[in-house]
Amino acid sequence: MSDGAKVVALSGGIGGAKLALGLDRLLPACALTVVANTGDDFNHLGLHVSPDIDTLLYTLAGLDDPTKGWGRRDETWTFMKAIAALGGESWFLLGDGDLATHVERTRRLGAGETLSMVTEAFRQRFGIASRILPMSDDAVRTRVRTDEGWLDFQHYFVRRRCEPAVEALEFTGAVSARMAPDVAAAIADPALAAIIICPSNPYLSVDPILAVPGMREALRARRVPALAVSPIIAGQAVKGPTAKMMAELGLEPSAATVARHYEGLIDGLMVDALDADVEVPAGMRVFAAATLMRSLDDRIYLARTVLAAVAELAGGRA
Amino acid sequence: MSDGAKVVALSGGIGGAKLALGLDRLLPACALTVVANTGDDFNHLGLHVSPDIDTLLYTLAGLDDPTKGWGRRDETWTFMKAIAALGGESWFLLGDGDLATHVERTRRLGAGETLSMVTEAFRQRFGIASRILPMSDDAVRTRVRTDEGWLDFQHYFVRRRCEPAVEALEFTGAVSARMAPDVAAAIADPALAAIIICPSNPYLSVDPILAVPGMREALRARRVPALAVSPIIAGQAVKGPTAKMMAELGLEPSAATVARHYEGLIDGLMVDALDADVEVPAGMRVFAAATLMRSLDDRIYLARTVLAAVAELAGGRA
Repeated sequence: MSDGAKVVALSGGIGGAKLALGLDRLLPACALTVVANTGDDFNHLGLHVSPDIDTLLYTLAGLDDPTKGWGRRDETWTFMKAIAALGGESWFLLGDGDLATHVERTRRLGAGETLSMVTEAFRQRFGIASRILPMSDDAVRTRVRTDEGWLDFQHYFVRRRCEPAVEALEFTGAVSARMAPDVAAAIADPALAAIIICPSNPYLSVDPILAVPGMREALRARRVPALAVSPIIAGQAVKGPTAKMMAELGLEPSAATVARHYEGLIDGLMVDALDADVEVPAGMRVFAAATLMRSLDDRIYLARTVLAAVAELAGGRA
Repeated sequence: MSDGAKVVALSGGIGGAKLALGLDRLLPACALTVVANTGDDFNHLGLHVSPDIDTLLYTLAGLDDPTKGWGRRDETWTFMKAIAALGGESWFLLGDGDLATHVERTRRLGAGETLSMVTEAFRQRFGIASRILPMSDDAVRTRVRTDEGWLDFQHYFVRRRCEPAVEALEFTGAVSARMAPDVAAAIADPALAAIIICPSNPYLSVDPILAVPGMREALRARRVPALAVSPIIAGQAVKGPTAKMMAELGLEPSAATVARHYEGLIDGLMVDALDADVEVPAGMRVFAAATLMRSLDDRIYLARTVLAAVAELAGGRA
């Protein structure tokens, strides 16, 4: 990409954050803007918890726990033990260090800051070079209709461990939510060179972002190449409930289904080499590479491959 | 004391909690009601912190830190490190376990519970046999006029380490505060046999309790003996700024000054053996004993001595 070119990446939590980290390490400072899903946000114990924003913050700051794959490294759990002893809710694990993020965020929101402002302050404090933005400063909450009835996202995801069968998803508040101002600016930026949809769960992590009014329209009217990375490899999800949920929704868990899901929104789909023969809608180009990201090198390799694909798409456009 | 006799103790934090623990260990379950100062309460990082209630809870539950003399035993400090890294306020030390108390209290208060209800729930959870009650469910906030101007209590006490010279004290909100319902009931209880003012700072810890409308009047009109334990031993405070503050207020730091401070409110003053010759107002009886409480045995010994003195006062009344 040319000097000064900007990239916008849409991301959920862990899977998306891996590619975001690769992009962050590869791109110049301030070139990358990660738009985070906030549909998973919830109020817990009076605290505003933003799981995907926090995963992005911790991952890009190098504070993530490499063993557990979530939360912070060098974490302690004294709070959880004490809250359980007090009879408080203990089904959502909050590490002692992680808690500082939620307490300080809640305090700042209470003092009138927007979620964008809080996230920006944390990004600066953590010394992260890329921008991380909530998709909206307004509350959008993912709810899951299951064979046990409607569940708030974290109740489905954490408390019930994704066990109930998913029948439908709803993003409460999305209709009236406004795109966060910096997200709109990033998408309208003349220096924007590409939009990347990270290998996050298309239904749980990316759809809430696309549900914010103007987001889907902006992608449809894109002036620059957009490319998604399939979170499905050979019919399997790398992590989390994506494949299980697709089956429950009557969809074949495959890269082809992901391709159809993003039809009209992307110019290219990056799939794993195992899925190189994927069928995609007309006009969508397929790129194949090793998309499983185990090491930091894997993340940087995939980011480089994604940027090369985007450059190729741009060439095709020019 | 006779079977079923009840005792009310007014207490601040650490010094008062030592005697409260002795009384708790000595008296039958449910016989002791500790009325806690809430003038030190404050909102910190969006959390409702009640330092004296918590000291009483932790002390009576055996969860207090025997080494530091404050906070919880087996505490960790990951939250503090993380909040400092985020640029949050870090001058007030909140241990990870301690934080659970503040988070759960704040959540319950937000859900509409009173401070009395929250404290009662925690007491039960901690398996404490004695009752602990806030003096009021309404906000009363101690403010300190110093040579540096007016300071909120915790700013004076913790942030400025009691260094500014105290000129006056104010209990904001006291005029319109209502005595907590269970406090009024405990004082009116026909089974009440004694009121004990613990060896807490008379100005910072006991005066806020006495500032709640009805409290001073109830003590003046007492039907049962009231006895205070002097927190001053041979002109020195065992801990904290009591003696320094008395000098700054133009008062001689002595048991005699404590006696005058409680004139009309108590029938007896328990002083240390070193102060056995203390001069007290007419009608007030002096009891002398070893009042320094280093061990649990010391606490139980002083509690036993206090209860014997109260029985003696009751005999004189009968």
